[in-house]
Amino acid sequence: MGVLRNILNSRSDKGGNFFSVLYKILGFKPKNILHYRKAFTHRSLNIKDEKGNAVSFERLEFLGDAMLSAVIASHLFKAVPGGNEGYLTKMRSKVVSRKHLNELGKDLKLIDHVQTNIPKDQFGANIHGNLFEALIGAIYLDRGYKYCKRFIYERVIDPYVDIEQLEGQVISYKSLFIEWCQKEKREFDFEVYEDTGNDEIKHFAVKLRLDDKVVAKARATSKKKAEEKTAKRAYYALQNKIT
Amino acid sequence: MGVLRNILNSRSDKGGNFFSVLYKILGFKPKNILHYRKAFTHRSLNIKDEKGNAVSFERLEFLGDAMLSAVIASHLFKAVPGGNEGYLTKMRSKVVSRKHLNELGKDLKLIDHVQTNIPKDQFGANIHGNLFEALIGAIYLDRGYKYCKRFIYERVIDPYVDIEQLEGQVISYKSLFIEWCQKEKREFDFEVYEDTGNDEIKHFAVKLRLDDKVVAKARATSKKKAEEKTAKRAYYALQNKIT
Repeated sequence: MGVLRNILNSRSDKGGNFFSVLYKILGFKPKNILHYRKAFTHRSLNIKDEKGNAVSFERLEFLGDAMLSAVIASHLFKAVPGGNEGYLTKMRSKVVSRKHLNELGKDLKLIDHVQTNIPKDQFGANIHGNLFEALIGAIYLDRGYKYCKRFIYERVIDPYVDIEQLEGQVISYKSLFIEWCQKEKREFDFEVYEDTGNDEIKHFAVKLRLDDKVVAKARATSKKKAEEKTAKRAYYALQNKIT
Repeated sequence: MGVLRNILNSRSDKGGNFFSVLYKILGFKPKNILHYRKAFTHRSLNIKDEKGNAVSFERLEFLGDAMLSAVIASHLFKAVPGGNEGYLTKMRSKVVSRKHLNELGKDLKLIDHVQTNIPKDQFGANIHGNLFEALIGAIYLDRGYKYCKRFIYERVIDPYVDIEQLEGQVISYKSLFIEWCQKEKREFDFEVYEDTGNDEIKHFAVKLRLDDKVVAKARATSKKKAEEKTAKRAYYALQNKIT
């Protein structure tokens, strides 16, 4: 690794500066800075290691993507105890979407630190997310899963992963249910009516029919909530068929 | 968790037996056996936790799958320093294929310990792999990433992941190259000829043409090796286009 270290270090922007840049981004001190140098090395530099293997951030993307998926999976598993496998998978794909990863990489201004032989404005839109994944890969190699997890909590989960928002806006059981009906060419109907009964505040009830058979009912304080609750019940009742 | 623990424990096959079964499968002592009970609970039991969430191994499959992917990714990253992102992704998908996971679950006889209300012979073929994934999820919850990794090394990587075999039999650069040509509707030709030169043993050389232009050449001691070497060179030379 000696020669490679020299090549990578010689490209350092102003010596020790890279260390303080990293410290700021990571929130902890890196141990082996070489992993991070690779995470910011574009293949256009044509750097090879002693065995002739190309050195760039691309391989680290693969590793970082896997670690990110694992940490997000474990978070969602604990945070959404009522979500089944298919639901958790969909939630995760929203969190680790290309669009979201690009935003994360952009926020950290990772592109400012890339070493490249091609002009930075020629990179595609995904450069930001790719660098973000590669950085996570480098963290794993440098400090292991624990620090990876810590970084992902600080930079992704705590600031951005709002379960209620994900549940409400991004995926609803109603939309999952409707999607399934359309795919399976089944008829459905959400019948909504006021049903306050003896409650103090206004309530709504929903009857959900699938091919004219009532498959679920629920009551709640808004039409939207009642529909969602009904769809959720139907979703779980039919889960063998739906997922 | 008290009530749930009682329900799950009451289904135990002969009391403390489950602990020793687990110890044998895991190779270490489980701390919180409840996670493993869930990993062997089929949804047909209709067990719910205090909040009404269904308890079965299905959610654990999601978690276990993510951990398995992460550990295999980190292994391949280190074991195949010459493989690029696309290559590593393909290698991983071979290791964690449904077929392979089913074999792993079957070898451990996980199905023997499932608690279910439907006859075991009515389970689909994927039950073995699903249980294997769920078990990994339970290990993660019980003992964290480190033990997950240890289990996966002992049960998957050390006995089954032979890089050379994966490289040679499962994916070859030649097949990757040919796949790409077919997709892109490009013409290719592997021209093989004897070229022993001054060597003591017989050698073969290969000229690989893409649309009549020679894009790579290589020599080796067998026709197959020479073709593979040539395809690998072409693959890396064209990697911007291929991946």
